[in-house]
Amino acid sequence: MGNRKYAIGVDYGTESGRAVLVDVQTGQEVATAVHPYPDGVIDETLPGTNIKLPPDFALQNPMDYVDVLRVTIPKVLAESGVDPGDVIGIGTDFTACTMLPIDVKGQPLCCDPAWHDNPYAWVKLWKHHAAQPEANKLNEIAAKRGEAWLSRYGEKISSEWMIPKIWETLNKAPEVYETTDKFIEAADWIVLQLTGQDHRNVSTAGYKAIWNKRDGYPDPEFFAALDPLLRNVVDEKLTRNVRSLGQKAGGLTDDMAQMLGLKPGTAVSIGNVDAHVSVPAATVTDAGTMVIIMGTSNCHMVMGTEEKRVPGMCGVVEDGIIPGFYGYEAGQSCVGDHFAWFVENCIPAAYQDEANQRGMDIHKLLEEKASQQKPGEHGLLALDWWNGNRSVLVDVDLTGMLVGMTLATKAEDIYHALIEATAYGTRLIIDTFQSKGVLVNAIVACGGLPERNPLLMQIYADVTGREIKVTASTQTPALGSAMHAAVAAGSAAGGYDTIQQAAESMARLKPETYKPIPEHEVVYNELYEEYVRLHDYFGRGENDVMKRLKALKARVLASA
Amino acid sequence: MGNRKYAIGVDYGTESGRAVLVDVQTGQEVATAVHPYPDGVIDETLPGTNIKLPPDFALQNPMDYVDVLRVTIPKVLAESGVDPGDVIGIGTDFTACTMLPIDVKGQPLCCDPAWHDNPYAWVKLWKHHAAQPEANKLNEIAAKRGEAWLSRYGEKISSEWMIPKIWETLNKAPEVYETTDKFIEAADWIVLQLTGQDHRNVSTAGYKAIWNKRDGYPDPEFFAALDPLLRNVVDEKLTRNVRSLGQKAGGLTDDMAQMLGLKPGTAVSIGNVDAHVSVPAATVTDAGTMVIIMGTSNCHMVMGTEEKRVPGMCGVVEDGIIPGFYGYEAGQSCVGDHFAWFVENCIPAAYQDEANQRGMDIHKLLEEKASQQKPGEHGLLALDWWNGNRSVLVDVDLTGMLVGMTLATKAEDIYHALIEATAYGTRLIIDTFQSKGVLVNAIVACGGLPERNPLLMQIYADVTGREIKVTASTQTPALGSAMHAAVAAGSAAGGYDTIQQAAESMARLKPETYKPIPEHEVVYNELYEEYVRLHDYFGRGENDVMKRLKALKARVLASA
Repeated sequence: MGNRKYAIGVDYGTESGRAVLVDVQTGQEVATAVHPYPDGVIDETLPGTNIKLPPDFALQNPMDYVDVLRVTIPKVLAESGVDPGDVIGIGTDFTACTMLPIDVKGQPLCCDPAWHDNPYAWVKLWKHHAAQPEANKLNEIAAKRGEAWLSRYGEKISSEWMIPKIWETLNKAPEVYETTDKFIEAADWIVLQLTGQDHRNVSTAGYKAIWNKRDGYPDPEFFAALDPLLRNVVDEKLTRNVRSLGQKAGGLTDDMAQMLGLKPGTAVSIGNVDAHVSVPAATVTDAGTMVIIMGTSNCHMVMGTEEKRVPGMCGVVEDGIIPGFYGYEAGQSCVGDHFAWFVENCIPAAYQDEANQRGMDIHKLLEEKASQQKPGEHGLLALDWWNGNRSVLVDVDLTGMLVGMTLATKAEDIYHALIEATAYGTRLIIDTFQSKGVLVNAIVACGGLPERNPLLMQIYADVTGREIKVTASTQTPALGSAMHAAVAAGSAAGGYDTIQQAAESMARLKPETYKPIPEHEVVYNELYEEYVRLHDYFGRGENDVMKRLKALKARVLASA
Repeated sequence: MGNRKYAIGVDYGTESGRAVLVDVQTGQEVATAVHPYPDGVIDETLPGTNIKLPPDFALQNPMDYVDVLRVTIPKVLAESGVDPGDVIGIGTDFTACTMLPIDVKGQPLCCDPAWHDNPYAWVKLWKHHAAQPEANKLNEIAAKRGEAWLSRYGEKISSEWMIPKIWETLNKAPEVYETTDKFIEAADWIVLQLTGQDHRNVSTAGYKAIWNKRDGYPDPEFFAALDPLLRNVVDEKLTRNVRSLGQKAGGLTDDMAQMLGLKPGTAVSIGNVDAHVSVPAATVTDAGTMVIIMGTSNCHMVMGTEEKRVPGMCGVVEDGIIPGFYGYEAGQSCVGDHFAWFVENCIPAAYQDEANQRGMDIHKLLEEKASQQKPGEHGLLALDWWNGNRSVLVDVDLTGMLVGMTLATKAEDIYHALIEATAYGTRLIIDTFQSKGVLVNAIVACGGLPERNPLLMQIYADVTGREIKVTASTQTPALGSAMHAAVAAGSAAGGYDTIQQAAESMARLKPETYKPIPEHEVVYNELYEEYVRLHDYFGRGENDVMKRLKALKARVLASA
């Protein structure tokens, strides 16, 4: 193995981190190691204390991220037997916006005993939702001021993103805000740990912190309209040093190199986002092919050569996915979660018994039963909003809807209809992109669902009318990070000079694809029309019953 | 027990018949016997043959009805020790329209070996639905001709009723039609068996056979428009001898008396319908109090002093429930069936385990969990149309709808919402009656659900804003038949001269009632408004998605 070069990709998920050691020439994944975060998702009490967290909190311990490096990298080295001298680079990707306050030395505030007991000193995980009031106010003010950047984000900044999360800290813990030297994405913080260099990656800056390559951040006037104390938040608490994906952030520090068993100076790439890093790992480095990461939720990414404003997308960021392209992102907030909810709450005991007796996973049993039906046969239609609607309505207050039930309706009918509803949601996203001139000519899927649910994949092909290819790797984000590491190392070190070159050698698709079945397409076109009509009726203000039910529920619970 | 007088009520249900021997002075139910029909509901093959039945068939064997008398009456006599000489009358009630073809001697055609193997020679049970094409055509023709009687039936004659069922036989088995001397309701046929007298009761004639006290049957011209062969169907195949409820049809024949162990000549009352006979047994003999029979479906009956045309009611018949009043009927086709469907198809194994461990019925467990919620707390709203809508939309092609689901929605939330939906449906029926001048000042409930589900009863009180009383008897129809028997016997024989007098002595309510809770009423008023809006959206043509889904399903299945 002497001549071969390797790169390590580290993928930071919600519950654990995973390192993959990859052959740079072939993309072969030589060794993998996973390490669950010791403190996991912190949503009840602060670790080591009995300090209760407010509702909607989701924190993490930044030391868990370092732990992942310490445990997994020596493990993949040992398992593969690769010489550390042949590892030319490390790349990382992260959930986003997952952010934390650090001091002037880059140390997380929560690691300082003086701040340990303050929840606002910890990492706010992407799904920390306590900044909703700030997000609502921010959106109201931005709309009123006619901020031009708002339409880059489907007219809505999410409570999950950087500015609402910073503002929440200012509101709720001004002493933390005051003491914080910088707020930083965990994606950038881990690179800071590896290299000692504080760079911000274009992806999280663009998609999560309202930064734009041409316009920069919003004006101080805008931030002052939120709160006079935020007027200079960018220069005081963020940084304008935003770097391109695949660039070298720096070399591995001596301390880190020693801890990980790698060579000091090993190239480390600029931070990246788990979804976006997957795009080139799915072989996609050009405009017009959508990559869908299908898991608990769906994330849709596609690139274009011009900036278009597409209603209800999560964001458009120049260079945000691949340098040289406008990266568009949209999403569905409830996909695998949908089926998990259904299986946990709606499956009769007889089905569970049958699955147990046949030694089958219950999802597999439902899939088997649903597969025996033709499209349209169950007579049901659902709106896939059990967890709100991310695109194109961008409305967390929407809820689920199911219509068409009779006394003959069975569990597999509903399961089938829920899968189809998520496919209609994806088609609506594609149609919306196309209607604004962002073309979606082809689809590549990755994530957990394509591995597990062929029925679902076929339905997506039938509903979207497009062949769907699937990535060969089951750990696409980590592979993507390794590819970016190879680019950061450069061709001189045995890597690549562009992500396109890296993708050509390292990324692969499965030979089998899902092709639309013409007879199914005809039926699904009909059903999709019904979906769109109900989507607009319940989602665009014709009948806001979902919101009124939710408001009534909140009122009733508050008066309890 | 020498001076006491008794009456026997026999209630013919869908699966079995039940005789109750009742003390005429007090209404006390002294003895009860139940006998399941040996051939039950015949919907697969004709008994004793392998002749397969077409879809939507539901037949019965008329000899099973005689069997009920033969088994149950001697049993209640033996069990009670009552002297047959003290039994002053027998009354019966039946499901309707349950009808059969008979020969000139009153013998069912199916009992003739020559006709035994012809399905059309058997009893068509109320839920025989194969006459839907005839019903559709009948309604179309009646509407086109502007038949004035159509609005007495909510503008729609059901496929379950007499004329479509006769027409079906003419179309599918003209030889049976030809051979038939008369078509007769089972309600009247059993009285014919008991007395040898062929009378038709006003209730089934009015509600099921388009007869009216003032206008009689529809014109021959109308019947001729259906089919020239039907022009004289009334005079050829029915009879105009329609008699009032509670009248004496005749005395028990010698043969019958011997078989049953009763005295020859014992008074037998005119036939009656299970729902209608329950009204006086629920103490109601005057206008303005609605009786709701709550079981697998809901049947709503209320009386008025004038004939009003109420949209979507099942029918208004003068003297149809109590002589001297206009009897109004409406219904919901899916109530207990709704909850049964839910429990069979949507309850997770964990709930079943909990119910088993605690030795509870699963309905009780769901009720317990749902009872812990305040109105509005689950955030859901349903349209209760899993089995179509009987009133006020009169549309079998409507289906179910559920809105408001989130990833936190639990089984008990949906169960709760389904109960509420049926209550909103009842309120809509009440509101429709009231809007047309048929007052509903009070409610009395009977049937299986009031016994079993106090949460449901409280919700009905909260949603309708009316106190709900419940009958003391758990066998209201049989008690009602016994009351009518006492009236047929008359006061001279120790009975009563009017059903009002009988009700005063024999019918009772439970002391406990369900009173609306004002805080609940406020929330349910809000939710009811949402229900009405969605009811109209999905049910009145704004969005016919339910019908299109059903049509698509039929098309897909037909092409399979």
